[in-house]
Amino acid sequence: MSMFDEYNAFGKDAANHVPLSPLTFIERTAALFPDRVAVIHGDRRYTYREEFERCRRLASGLEKLGVKQGVTVAVMAFNTPEMVECHSGVAATGGVLNTINVRLDPDTIAYILGHGEAKVLITDTAFAASVAAALDILGGDHGITVIDIDDPMNDGDKTRLGQMTYEDLLASGDPDYAWTLPDDEWDAMALNYTSGSTGRPKGVVYHHRGSHLMTMGTIADWQMPQHLCYYYVVPLFHCNGWGHVWAVTALAGTIVCSRAVTAKAVYDAIADHNVTHFGGAPIVLGMIVNALEEDRKPFDHTVEVMTAGAPPPAAILEAIEKIGFNVTQVYGLTETYGHTVMCVWNSDWDDEDFASRAVLKARQGVGMTLTQRITVIDPETGAEVPSDGETIGEIGIQSNTIMKGYLKNPEATKEAFINGYFRSGDLAVMHPNGYVEIKDRLKDIIISGGENISSVEIEGALHRHPAVAIAAVVAKPDDKWGEVPCAFVELKPGGEVTEDELINFSREHLAGFKRPKQIVFMTIPKTATGKLQKFELRRMVKDGEV
Amino acid sequence: MSMFDEYNAFGKDAANHVPLSPLTFIERTAALFPDRVAVIHGDRRYTYREEFERCRRLASGLEKLGVKQGVTVAVMAFNTPEMVECHSGVAATGGVLNTINVRLDPDTIAYILGHGEAKVLITDTAFAASVAAALDILGGDHGITVIDIDDPMNDGDKTRLGQMTYEDLLASGDPDYAWTLPDDEWDAMALNYTSGSTGRPKGVVYHHRGSHLMTMGTIADWQMPQHLCYYYVVPLFHCNGWGHVWAVTALAGTIVCSRAVTAKAVYDAIADHNVTHFGGAPIVLGMIVNALEEDRKPFDHTVEVMTAGAPPPAAILEAIEKIGFNVTQVYGLTETYGHTVMCVWNSDWDDEDFASRAVLKARQGVGMTLTQRITVIDPETGAEVPSDGETIGEIGIQSNTIMKGYLKNPEATKEAFINGYFRSGDLAVMHPNGYVEIKDRLKDIIISGGENISSVEIEGALHRHPAVAIAAVVAKPDDKWGEVPCAFVELKPGGEVTEDELINFSREHLAGFKRPKQIVFMTIPKTATGKLQKFELRRMVKDGEV
Repeated sequence: MSMFDEYNAFGKDAANHVPLSPLTFIERTAALFPDRVAVIHGDRRYTYREEFERCRRLASGLEKLGVKQGVTVAVMAFNTPEMVECHSGVAATGGVLNTINVRLDPDTIAYILGHGEAKVLITDTAFAASVAAALDILGGDHGITVIDIDDPMNDGDKTRLGQMTYEDLLASGDPDYAWTLPDDEWDAMALNYTSGSTGRPKGVVYHHRGSHLMTMGTIADWQMPQHLCYYYVVPLFHCNGWGHVWAVTALAGTIVCSRAVTAKAVYDAIADHNVTHFGGAPIVLGMIVNALEEDRKPFDHTVEVMTAGAPPPAAILEAIEKIGFNVTQVYGLTETYGHTVMCVWNSDWDDEDFASRAVLKARQGVGMTLTQRITVIDPETGAEVPSDGETIGEIGIQSNTIMKGYLKNPEATKEAFINGYFRSGDLAVMHPNGYVEIKDRLKDIIISGGENISSVEIEGALHRHPAVAIAAVVAKPDDKWGEVPCAFVELKPGGEVTEDELINFSREHLAGFKRPKQIVFMTIPKTATGKLQKFELRRMVKDGEV
Repeated sequence: MSMFDEYNAFGKDAANHVPLSPLTFIERTAALFPDRVAVIHGDRRYTYREEFERCRRLASGLEKLGVKQGVTVAVMAFNTPEMVECHSGVAATGGVLNTINVRLDPDTIAYILGHGEAKVLITDTAFAASVAAALDILGGDHGITVIDIDDPMNDGDKTRLGQMTYEDLLASGDPDYAWTLPDDEWDAMALNYTSGSTGRPKGVVYHHRGSHLMTMGTIADWQMPQHLCYYYVVPLFHCNGWGHVWAVTALAGTIVCSRAVTAKAVYDAIADHNVTHFGGAPIVLGMIVNALEEDRKPFDHTVEVMTAGAPPPAAILEAIEKIGFNVTQVYGLTETYGHTVMCVWNSDWDDEDFASRAVLKARQGVGMTLTQRITVIDPETGAEVPSDGETIGEIGIQSNTIMKGYLKNPEATKEAFINGYFRSGDLAVMHPNGYVEIKDRLKDIIISGGENISSVEIEGALHRHPAVAIAAVVAKPDDKWGEVPCAFVELKPGGEVTEDELINFSREHLAGFKRPKQIVFMTIPKTATGKLQKFELRRMVKDGEV
């Protein structure tokens, strides 16, 4: 036999080839640190022994409801212990966790439940109104088993929609449920809907391998320590909370839950629980910097903050670092499991003046350790553009932390990949030192307070008004929200409507966070073929003309 | 289509499925931190830009010599820059790196070169005598291209055996060589021969996936920081230096090379280069603790030390921690890429008294984060034994960081795996808290009067005596008892104790039947890596030399 054949003669054994999955982390940590606190929420505290038992009961209870490989379990929840547990408990059955953005309108929730074919819906009673409306839209034979989360910390709606509470479900489950890995690390594990440039959101499918590697890469890149205390600010319904839930579990750390984030809540969590880390949208940084004096509490350690989205304004960055927070900026998309690019600081730049440092910090950065390649490509051909800091192309990403594809959408999946790269839809330049900097967005997406908003969806809502001939929505920079939707509207001949009237009108068809914050009435610039010149509208916004 | 089918409908794309390999690390670090120092050796310093270029030249030069997928490149070298470069440069061609223990005799070297079918041998001129003898044994038509490493730091033999030096080879290579990943992460990457108790050494085959995961797991478990400075004490020919070469590269750290390790060299490296980390056998800890006053140099940071093999004696541990070193104990085998079990300290134990803490620290520990499962099994059936701290069985390991198998040895490969576990050959108990504690090598148990006696336990008792540097216990045939324990003891410089005194001393810590019946004072034979050569002691006993 040739040496080539000798080296290839080995089969894989269960001993030396184990499916990569984030499911391994809680099993190990519960065995190793059973008495450490895993989760804190108000008066509730669960040790890793308890938390692992709750996850096993959950998996077992779900199995009794018919959940198994390839079955979708939808969840509408804030960052409560139930949401944390669903992240391991659903995957342990082989099922697929579909966390839904709690701010969505009933119509979109109904669409997601139908498209993802959820068999079980676990929902916090706080969302009873919108969930009930969504189930109504689906009709009486939707076949979804509804489980209510009745959180003592919820002081809002307590209406139950299902026959069983989450705690009932746990009680029905076996505490000794056999914790097993998926058959194949490429198996689907999570389903996250993301607003694209077309109206309906697309279902991004994650696999076990990707979530595992995301975890290990984040530990190395963010230099996460053992036993950290992590305050869960970024919603777990966003890219599974950037996967930090698994990293904290792997490191036997503590997760501090939150139903809503305020500056006071952040300072309280640091003071009460010695929080060392959190991740959140730039808007949270602004909240902290601008907190009322009486809401602040002193602390004497550095709190590590990961933030994603548009780079925070330099003034906010400077201010927050002075009061004890160290900010790490990352970039990513739902399709990339969250962060995939990081603005790694090079100590060679320490001596640059403030303005130069601000320029360097405004760049999105470089691929993270487990991102195989970040590049800027010609959107038509997929070929790399020169690293000259000037040629604009689309950010292309090659990584094991890229989705399998879009559920039930082979066309969009095919379009998402070109020449071995995932197409991010973000336009950028590549600087000679290998750092990418975003210049514009190829897709019509507005990122406001960490939420993706489709401009097409807003345009559709505005078009429903009888006076509107053409509506075009673009992102407008905003100190608080990062971006807000700004609508340009051309009225029909004789049509009449005021800005306030139109904003109020859109309220009927859009979730609150999607409503345009400004409406500009004008004749919209078009090409010779009648195509709207959105780049011209973006220029007007950028140059402060509106 | 059913949802099960929908979730399984996705193919893999080059964008979202990248072969796991440690080859990715140097490419990223060189792009990100080109001016950081990668390697220091005497007066030589290579930045990451230079080091990556040298690796690419090496890969290209080797390719011109016929190296490609499945071709073996053997290396006889100390921990010099060439050895570091071979770790990425050989794998980049698809070839397999076979690092050979430099202390081996010519006959065994010849056996390894023949069995591994090396096409290229890169060898430091310091080993010219044994390598020339090995090549003689292979005969004139061995067909191996010999490349000489001519290290300016080598003040020994400078005899060249080949037509080309290592620097000639680099000069022949393309500095812009295309750096590519393997086709398959399961492809062979390294070949490490390990000595069994009898017969010829076996060739352990590593794959890219295992080395990648070993790297990421070590960063998390050892909490390795960015830009660490790592002094390479553990030989790179031993499990690829426990894979630390890749972890340091991933973290853009600096490797300080060494041709030979002395206490003075360790203190000098810390003082000159601000070394923060190193890995080494317990014997190195003893060297540091017992260093001459004039060889010591002050330093004001903590140096992290990873050590493997038998747990260091408590006295050594206590002494070394007092002078600024923090020791992490790990356990592993060549077949497991090095460390796979770690004695993770639980802060709950901080309040235990010294003796209890010493008992806890003597345990090998728990599986590392990327070790799927460590257990203790019945060697016959592969079934788990009870976690009672008493039932002795064999340590079984399930992990992606387990070898593919033994080269050209399907029988030994088959025997190495049982019931989904790799058989370590080490006998241990599983404590109720999930920590394993080794009791003996499978072949190292002493059976006396029907009782099983652990030689490790006796050695531990003897180590408590202040005059004892090293103790090794083996079974001695006995007419009455079948076997009795026979101890070999190496005294500390200036240490004094008689055989009777030491036997009486051990009485305080051992059951009567476990006391050594004979003590032989001598310098104990060790391997190049500091492992005690018990088989030599057993031979002496068997041959009646003691």
